[in-house]
Amino acid sequence: MPKRLRMGFQGERGAFGEVAAGKMLSRSVELVPLPNFPAVFRALAARKLDYATVPIENTLFGSIHENYDLLLKHRFHILAETRVRIVHNLIAPPGVSLRQVRRVYSQPPALGQCRRFLEQHRKWEEVPFHDTAGSVRMIIEQRLTDAAAIASKAAATIYGGRILAADIADDPENYTRFFLLGRTTRSNRPVGTKTSIVFAAKNLPGALFRCLSVFALRDVNLTKIESRPLRGRPWEYLFYLDFQGNPSSGPARNALKNLAETTDFLRVLGCYPTVP
Amino acid sequence: MPKRLRMGFQGERGAFGEVAAGKMLSRSVELVPLPNFPAVFRALAARKLDYATVPIENTLFGSIHENYDLLLKHRFHILAETRVRIVHNLIAPPGVSLRQVRRVYSQPPALGQCRRFLEQHRKWEEVPFHDTAGSVRMIIEQRLTDAAAIASKAAATIYGGRILAADIADDPENYTRFFLLGRTTRSNRPVGTKTSIVFAAKNLPGALFRCLSVFALRDVNLTKIESRPLRGRPWEYLFYLDFQGNPSSGPARNALKNLAETTDFLRVLGCYPTVP
Repeated sequence: MPKRLRMGFQGERGAFGEVAAGKMLSRSVELVPLPNFPAVFRALAARKLDYATVPIENTLFGSIHENYDLLLKHRFHILAETRVRIVHNLIAPPGVSLRQVRRVYSQPPALGQCRRFLEQHRKWEEVPFHDTAGSVRMIIEQRLTDAAAIASKAAATIYGGRILAADIADDPENYTRFFLLGRTTRSNRPVGTKTSIVFAAKNLPGALFRCLSVFALRDVNLTKIESRPLRGRPWEYLFYLDFQGNPSSGPARNALKNLAETTDFLRVLGCYPTVP
Repeated sequence: MPKRLRMGFQGERGAFGEVAAGKMLSRSVELVPLPNFPAVFRALAARKLDYATVPIENTLFGSIHENYDLLLKHRFHILAETRVRIVHNLIAPPGVSLRQVRRVYSQPPALGQCRRFLEQHRKWEEVPFHDTAGSVRMIIEQRLTDAAAIASKAAATIYGGRILAADIADDPENYTRFFLLGRTTRSNRPVGTKTSIVFAAKNLPGALFRCLSVFALRDVNLTKIESRPLRGRPWEYLFYLDFQGNPSSGPARNALKNLAETTDFLRVLGCYPTVP
């Protein structure tokens, strides 16, 4: 019997990272919850994991810069991407009804995203907790009879909670984009249609414009640009770009060759299938 | 006697925001410490302040995205910028020597930035506190005899602490850029040489390239680009640009006219003197 592959993610069982992992890997894997993002990257580097799932950006809060920095520090490959709609639910231990609730536990950002719903229940006390799914586990393990938690449907299923109110966030357009990371690519010629790179432009006037022109000249479409400070060179920046194309062929290949001439540093972070 | 102008900043007296304010305003002002960035913006909007100082980026940690979002939400003007070197010092109550120290208080990022120094004192307990300058105030007010705090030299001066070890951060190239904000500009034709704008590009292929080309064509030099998610349009972005030039004259004026053609939304956030 083959050994099961191990997949790491940040948070407790039922976290949105676990939901993302389920969308990106078809075969069954052993899920490894880890306390924070550096721990996820370290476990993958130490071969304690075969894959890792990390969030990279959210449509309300923007990029998760810590993970951009960790992608640069570690030399992993992005193997896939996915987008998960962040659906918050009010979850209670079995037998606890809406009328019994006096306290609501969750991560502060999740509480903040459900402001309109919580304003209909002004007498409830909001209690910050370090993890959304973990707050469900806690209220159920401690058999609280006056408490609910805000988390994913997956968390309700895993810990046996009951959804008292579904999809309670103010803004329905709350999506997080996740990457699937591995230590190696599956092949030297990836079959993906989207590529992520990071580069430092040469310190020249119009440097970023020159860099973007290598894509525009060839109608290679950029889908994301992110800047981060360049360590040791104050007020200079690294740029992370996502574009549609495969670095092993066609216009994207030529664009990257051309980009190497206008950059001091350039690395391909991965090539992976585009999410429709 | 004229009323003194009121200047707000985040943190307690002695915070780096107060140091920045001192560099940007020559006349004496009444300093108003506020607990967080939204409170600073709200106080300026409510006319409880004449000016506000907010950090916008740091050379180690990158942009302070919360303040980018608040700049968009409020319609203030950037009147000046400055750069402050973040110098951390070990500060103790008067009479407390290095040998007596058992605990060190500060904000977790400040403790993290002094890792090498703290590793020389492994027996010290690190205690997280919500504010760097505030940790100095606390250890002195409580007359602790076994404690020190990590904060600015200004905090030592204000609260009467003694610097036991100066400039103890690992990385000396730790700078924060601050903006001075006001409700109105001083004149319709600002005399500045640097401009900050925010825009949403039209949803077309090569959109960002088109937008940057209006500057490149005219040799207008970009110094910073930052992207933020566009609310209500998932996977589209707002861009914040800083460039050298004055929107009321010359090539920068023409570049902005041109930019209006390729954007759905465009706002000038301010024009101010360049820091040398």
